[in-house]
Amino acid sequence: MALKLHGPAISTNTSRVIICLHEKEVDFELVPLDLFSGEHKHPHFLAKNPFGQVPVLEDGDLTLFESRAISAYIAEKYKETGYDLLRHQNLQEAALVKVWMEVESQQFHPAIAPIVYQFFVDPLNGVSPDQAIIDANLEKLGKVLDIYEARLSSSKYLAGDFYSLADLHHLPYTYYLMKTAAASLINERPHVKAWWEDISSRPASKKAAEGMTFGEK
Amino acid sequence: MALKLHGPAISTNTSRVIICLHEKEVDFELVPLDLFSGEHKHPHFLAKNPFGQVPVLEDGDLTLFESRAISAYIAEKYKETGYDLLRHQNLQEAALVKVWMEVESQQFHPAIAPIVYQFFVDPLNGVSPDQAIIDANLEKLGKVLDIYEARLSSSKYLAGDFYSLADLHHLPYTYYLMKTAAASLINERPHVKAWWEDISSRPASKKAAEGMTFGEK
Repeated sequence: MALKLHGPAISTNTSRVIICLHEKEVDFELVPLDLFSGEHKHPHFLAKNPFGQVPVLEDGDLTLFESRAISAYIAEKYKETGYDLLRHQNLQEAALVKVWMEVESQQFHPAIAPIVYQFFVDPLNGVSPDQAIIDANLEKLGKVLDIYEARLSSSKYLAGDFYSLADLHHLPYTYYLMKTAAASLINERPHVKAWWEDISSRPASKKAAEGMTFGEK
Repeated sequence: MALKLHGPAISTNTSRVIICLHEKEVDFELVPLDLFSGEHKHPHFLAKNPFGQVPVLEDGDLTLFESRAISAYIAEKYKETGYDLLRHQNLQEAALVKVWMEVESQQFHPAIAPIVYQFFVDPLNGVSPDQAIIDANLEKLGKVLDIYEARLSSSKYLAGDFYSLADLHHLPYTYYLMKTAAASLINERPHVKAWWEDISSRPASKKAAEGMTFGEK
């Protein structure tokens, strides 16, 4: 039975998992969900994820939520299929993948997420973006990217000279950031820019990006 | 050569790793660091962790940062030693451990951390706690704990009927929260309270708590 992924392809957190599934060459069924009508807050969805957030993965009778946990599960379960995202045969490299996955989660995400929400989600609700929130987080994100710039001047990818789940986890939010004026934060840092062009042009990333049409007409 | 853990035992993020080391019965050397004089921002420490945060683990020539990545590395490297924190022999249980580790990171931590900082860190800097920040995050944390209460009424621990790294990761911040008036958030939810009493009374948790003296005279 194919994996069932609940969530819309335009969602950042859903597309994080979609990219991972493409990298692992794993078949799945995408079950659409209407976020705009609040379907993720209905009892039938809360029974799958009590936090009422997309995505949810169903693999037989196993139900998982939290996109980073789902992608780590897929990368582990299918470790012999497709691209090895976890460096599972090398404990030291696998440890560095873990470190930079946590950096994405604890340093990068808290800065980029509010910017992307202000630019894309607030206007949908008829609210003007809050420039003070954008500015505070641009400053925060810039400091994180300064550290990335130094890191990526000594290794091609974040965890080392190999693409990994740590890089992959950055794709969805950065993809939307690049559609805004804040793209300069990436473009003005040459190593970060080269890294972004590399990871976003992988076939799995491009395939997922076809569904990431938030903010388009 | 013993593992070297850089960071003070009073720090939440350092003690997250210390508890894990105790659970795994792994010897380590704790290298003290003076956060109050800003030692974590000195070049010698930034060379170990460019984000200038504790803890850092050195295992031979491997240097790791981000407490959750370090504890996952220790749990994986020493999977045959001490208590199995990752359920590494059962893919489904291991997946649920990942889910609830991410819940701690993405739902619980962003709510509890500002409360603990307001109560303990701001007063050290001569700043009064900001009641608006405390109140907003108490409300957020309460909603997360409502979901925990439901979860813990059907399983003894977060990922299932087994203690895991997912539970462990909650210990340090909750430990300090319990020293404040906000302890009521835990105490008024019977399943959460029973879970807290269980996980905080494990020998590894109690041993680490001896060093968690923030706010004491």
